[in-house]
Amino acid sequence: MPELSYLNGKIRPISETYVPVEDRGYQFGDAVYEFIASYNGKMFCMKEHLDRLQHSMQGLSFPKLSETFIENAVFELFEKAEIPRAGIYIQVSRGVAPRDHAWPKEIKLQVIMTIKEVKEVPLKLRKDGVDIIIVQDERWSNCDIKTVQILPNAMAKQKAKNQGAYDAIFVSKDGIVREGTSSNFFIVKDGRLITPPLTKNILPGITRKVVLDLAGDTGIKVEERFILKTELFSADEAFLTGTITEILGIKTIDGIQIGNGKSGEITQKLYKALREKAEI
Amino acid sequence: MPELSYLNGKIRPISETYVPVEDRGYQFGDAVYEFIASYNGKMFCMKEHLDRLQHSMQGLSFPKLSETFIENAVFELFEKAEIPRAGIYIQVSRGVAPRDHAWPKEIKLQVIMTIKEVKEVPLKLRKDGVDIIIVQDERWSNCDIKTVQILPNAMAKQKAKNQGAYDAIFVSKDGIVREGTSSNFFIVKDGRLITPPLTKNILPGITRKVVLDLAGDTGIKVEERFILKTELFSADEAFLTGTITEILGIKTIDGIQIGNGKSGEITQKLYKALREKAEI
Repeated sequence: MPELSYLNGKIRPISETYVPVEDRGYQFGDAVYEFIASYNGKMFCMKEHLDRLQHSMQGLSFPKLSETFIENAVFELFEKAEIPRAGIYIQVSRGVAPRDHAWPKEIKLQVIMTIKEVKEVPLKLRKDGVDIIIVQDERWSNCDIKTVQILPNAMAKQKAKNQGAYDAIFVSKDGIVREGTSSNFFIVKDGRLITPPLTKNILPGITRKVVLDLAGDTGIKVEERFILKTELFSADEAFLTGTITEILGIKTIDGIQIGNGKSGEITQKLYKALREKAEI
Repeated sequence: MPELSYLNGKIRPISETYVPVEDRGYQFGDAVYEFIASYNGKMFCMKEHLDRLQHSMQGLSFPKLSETFIENAVFELFEKAEIPRAGIYIQVSRGVAPRDHAWPKEIKLQVIMTIKEVKEVPLKLRKDGVDIIIVQDERWSNCDIKTVQILPNAMAKQKAKNQGAYDAIFVSKDGIVREGTSSNFFIVKDGRLITPPLTKNILPGITRKVVLDLAGDTGIKVEERFILKTELFSADEAFLTGTITEILGIKTIDGIQIGNGKSGEITQKLYKALREKAEI
């Protein structure tokens, strides 16, 4: 199965896909993105992802781009690639124009996508949980918009990797826990599921929402409220959520053991429920 | 005179220049840049720009790229284009790799440049001064690193344009004046030149430094200290500085007249001194 790209209507191998040097996505970070996964040949939460893409585009005052148009393009690429467990990356940039901070009226949105087979999180990590580190949140104030300005996320993930950890979570200067570098963050305390509320400082995660719904369905009490850094180490369980991350238990934070030091009971229960929902 | 690009050693027209879709500059904002101008066929403050580029690359933990290598590439492009009053845009991205927040060890820096004739600020604006607006600073915490994550700058510039203004200045939530969207900011009060000190929240502008030096040479007293939003409207003069902006007087801020409502006396004096220095 080849890894393919879609660029303004044309499908070709990713390695042969190029964008104009004056695409504003390249010179200004002036682009938004989504990442959708399929299970057994079926896209998961596609509508939610495409809705969020619209929200991101609105956040940057992009002109309207029909959701059906993007949906059709996604399916066209998906059918061509024939990858049952696929990750589709969608990026929409404001377009191509001679470099200038302000943009011209007649600029045209540029849509690019890539499709690849999903690299699953290793089973051992799913069972054992992962080590994460804390990084100070120095990102801009509009992290609810999914732009390609994710250099701090990339730097934090690399920092984790350099320290032998799996990922990092952002914590504000005043000690409020935000989210992972490409995931949302949850803890379990006394049987209750706790996750930060939706503010401009975190992404409204699709998997986050699915998890909250699944928790409700299975009778787990849910709290959306700020989590303080000082609370982390007395949590019974902690996990990350995301499209590829799914629900991933946390073993240690900054080297300190969380709960019993492996992926917790409620974490595993929710993970199982998520896979069942996704694989139907 | 053609507008040309340089991409990893090859020179061609900008319109025929493309970068790989998985260049990290495009998908993560993982790139830094500089903009250098020439006067009468001679580059201005080239060493300062190339030094700052190194500082930015270090800030993102890029591997070392020889300054001589970039300098030679700049001159190669400059000589080919034969544009005496040229603006050279230089962008260095971490490189091309399959999309992943962390980057592989063997990734190779990608160097692109473009050269165009400088679009001078209209003489009328130089004389009359410009209207600017105030925008809340919602950028990340490392604005001393000149990355391509400048979407908030682009949005602020566009907001100014939409309101019929020339540019915007960023002011922090607690009322501290930072800088313009692609320029530093100065006021004149009782004959003294005042500009914000270098912190992680503003770019260490090359023209800013030149202006401070010129002020010293011409006996103007200089203060580097925080400027409060509340001070703006009692300033005698205000101006922006930058590579293309040079020294540009401000007429109004958020519609309120500054000083006598045109480009001030010290502003003009410094502008004349800058042009003399640059055109030697």
